[in-house]
Amino acid sequence: MKKSGKAEAADLHEPAAANGLLHRRFFLAGGAGVGLAALSGAAKAEPLAVPEWTRKPGAWFSAYGQPSKYESKVGRGAIVEHNPLYESGPGSIRTPLQFLEGMITPNGLHFERSHNGIPDIDPEQHRLVIHGLVKRPLVFTMDDLARYPMTSRISFVECAGNSGALYAKDAAAGTAQTLHGLLSCAEWTGVSLALLLDEAGVDPKATWLLAEGADAASMSRSVPLAKAMDDAMVCLYQNGERIRPSNGYPLRLLVPGYQGNMNVKWLRRIKLTAGPTMTKDETSKYSLLLNEGKSAQFKFQLDAKAIITRPSPGYLLKQQGFYEISGLAWSGNGKVTKVEVTADGGKTWAQAALSDPVLSKALTRFRIPWHWTGQAAVLQARCTDDTGYTQPARDVLIAARGNRAAYHNNAISSWSVATGGEVKHVYA
Amino acid sequence: MKKSGKAEAADLHEPAAANGLLHRRFFLAGGAGVGLAALSGAAKAEPLAVPEWTRKPGAWFSAYGQPSKYESKVGRGAIVEHNPLYESGPGSIRTPLQFLEGMITPNGLHFERSHNGIPDIDPEQHRLVIHGLVKRPLVFTMDDLARYPMTSRISFVECAGNSGALYAKDAAAGTAQTLHGLLSCAEWTGVSLALLLDEAGVDPKATWLLAEGADAASMSRSVPLAKAMDDAMVCLYQNGERIRPSNGYPLRLLVPGYQGNMNVKWLRRIKLTAGPTMTKDETSKYSLLLNEGKSAQFKFQLDAKAIITRPSPGYLLKQQGFYEISGLAWSGNGKVTKVEVTADGGKTWAQAALSDPVLSKALTRFRIPWHWTGQAAVLQARCTDDTGYTQPARDVLIAARGNRAAYHNNAISSWSVATGGEVKHVYA
Repeated sequence: MKKSGKAEAADLHEPAAANGLLHRRFFLAGGAGVGLAALSGAAKAEPLAVPEWTRKPGAWFSAYGQPSKYESKVGRGAIVEHNPLYESGPGSIRTPLQFLEGMITPNGLHFERSHNGIPDIDPEQHRLVIHGLVKRPLVFTMDDLARYPMTSRISFVECAGNSGALYAKDAAAGTAQTLHGLLSCAEWTGVSLALLLDEAGVDPKATWLLAEGADAASMSRSVPLAKAMDDAMVCLYQNGERIRPSNGYPLRLLVPGYQGNMNVKWLRRIKLTAGPTMTKDETSKYSLLLNEGKSAQFKFQLDAKAIITRPSPGYLLKQQGFYEISGLAWSGNGKVTKVEVTADGGKTWAQAALSDPVLSKALTRFRIPWHWTGQAAVLQARCTDDTGYTQPARDVLIAARGNRAAYHNNAISSWSVATGGEVKHVYA
Repeated sequence: MKKSGKAEAADLHEPAAANGLLHRRFFLAGGAGVGLAALSGAAKAEPLAVPEWTRKPGAWFSAYGQPSKYESKVGRGAIVEHNPLYESGPGSIRTPLQFLEGMITPNGLHFERSHNGIPDIDPEQHRLVIHGLVKRPLVFTMDDLARYPMTSRISFVECAGNSGALYAKDAAAGTAQTLHGLLSCAEWTGVSLALLLDEAGVDPKATWLLAEGADAASMSRSVPLAKAMDDAMVCLYQNGERIRPSNGYPLRLLVPGYQGNMNVKWLRRIKLTAGPTMTKDETSKYSLLLNEGKSAQFKFQLDAKAIITRPSPGYLLKQQGFYEISGLAWSGNGKVTKVEVTADGGKTWAQAALSDPVLSKALTRFRIPWHWTGQAAVLQARCTDDTGYTQPARDVLIAARGNRAAYHNNAISSWSVATGGEVKHVYA
């Protein structure tokens, strides 16, 4: 089945695509000896001096741990304010994708979008109502819900406005965080919405539902009943612990793979309806404007997409040699089946390795080795999902959608690497 | 292939084991209507009043998020001190398993064991040396390592001393946290140790390695070379972000499925050796004492085990009716294949549902529905892994190991539920 290590290694040393891309299994086949050690700063190891921190007892425990003070740059960055006059109000804050690895986003760095601040909800007083076109309207305390059977799934959440800067005529200066950081992934645990709707008894006339948050914007979205009965969840937990206030404490709707704000935070009400409610949050906003005054109003799924996070703008490649290209791929339609990477702006492509587990509607980490010879390069990645869909080039997306669109930008994005090693966002 | 929903539901309403255990797919087959709504406090939903927090804009964003103030009870609890005279020194702090759900432990709640406090390591100054029986000793800065190819895996870490209280003659009062909380699970990302050892060139005489931490205890363990070349990793990231100081910043060894402290934190040195080094941390401690003065010194793998986390001591079942039994199962030998649950102290068992993804050497969430009729019950879970191994009853384990053992207790543990609903740790 598998070729011998030596034979395979020989094959793997052939380029996988132009401008230095190597086979994704290069390092697994003993390829490393050809160059990585030279990178590693020192081939000769002197005995290490005993540092100061080994000479004295360290710090004591704490009930709830925090990141290192040396990592203070790894925050959610500047807040994108919609109106600088607000003391609170709508805004967003983005995940620093360029500093992270793996598929899970730690809870303290999950992106946030809110429409009128983070409400301070007492879980003892909070209620969830299910009403409208149901046989038996129900109201739940959080303790009631905690007795229900739970399910868990690892799922990404992405704002529909993520990567919106790629609609602009000129490539914005920016980083993976500022351009694409309205994207995170966590393990969510809660109660199947289908189970709660079964309890309430769905009236056959119901085809949609309205989900409403308890924030001061009463953020509300319509969700097709079919989606609600498929894989939607009413979540209490994020990455093991109760969801934090900024991400919906004590209760959040999860509609895997759909526009971020349909995963309604601070969930207080689900009303079953005969059609979409046409709320402010799905009419004045979050509709995809197309050419000729048309709108793809109820396009909910986030299509396949990939982003290279390392290297990305903000990185400086200090010397030639081996690098790993690492990034994230995902699809609101299912599983990632393939990520291809180019180092020459799309002329030649090589397939990246996908890190297990590859899960439906979850972020998937991809990686591929790259030998940078110091020449200019343009790095791109493109994702294919298990429906067979491949994300489009930017010019193809713009041609299809015109210049009025603001949401659902899943075009291939490009990082240029200059001969000096500087990495920048470009259109290519 | 699959029976129709109705036919299946009919079967699923049959008990799966005595004392109220229901089929693990009960809720998936429309079984809920028979009783869950009655639990839920109110069948009639009045329009909700608009609460105070919806009437005014909420709080603004923060660069690094924190849990809700209403969840302050969810901490790592009392520190287990080894000597109350120390201001720092050895100790441990445990994950509050009874308050968590899913498989991931958030970084702030990952258990900690340290032997002389948490060192304050400057990553710019920290180095990793690989030396001893290698062709080419190497020293790495953290920036060097960050250029190497990475891998990710979701893995549990469990202290060898976890559940040690179950060796005591009488059942200790305790919770899932205090009895079993030296156990956590995270997504770890870093460099394959095999890749680094290949770079250094392993001398054929090498069969073990010594891994040493930069803490003030210079905590050190010997690891068989075969394990190092199999799946060990030198980790930089935990759940997406850089590992926190308390869990090994900036560098931690991961030896999936092996005793917790072999996953050496603050890793500074790997020395390849012709045999085990017999450090203080593997001779005076962390050896499993057996009968007749013998010791299973180099038993590293943590065998299959399951713990019920909900309900567990500290919970009070306030009324009869439906509950979900939820817990964690894992094995240092591979994947969990089966978790069985009993509500009658082991006379009859039913199979629990396992939450996807079920990963090798990772925590696996299991769940099973239970109809509590208000009678006394004894809840237990037992895990079987993909080697065919099933965790033993406590009396079987004690009979095999005698009364001097302190580590590797993977006996089945028992929670009694009294007629008043109080849950307690018992031997059964």
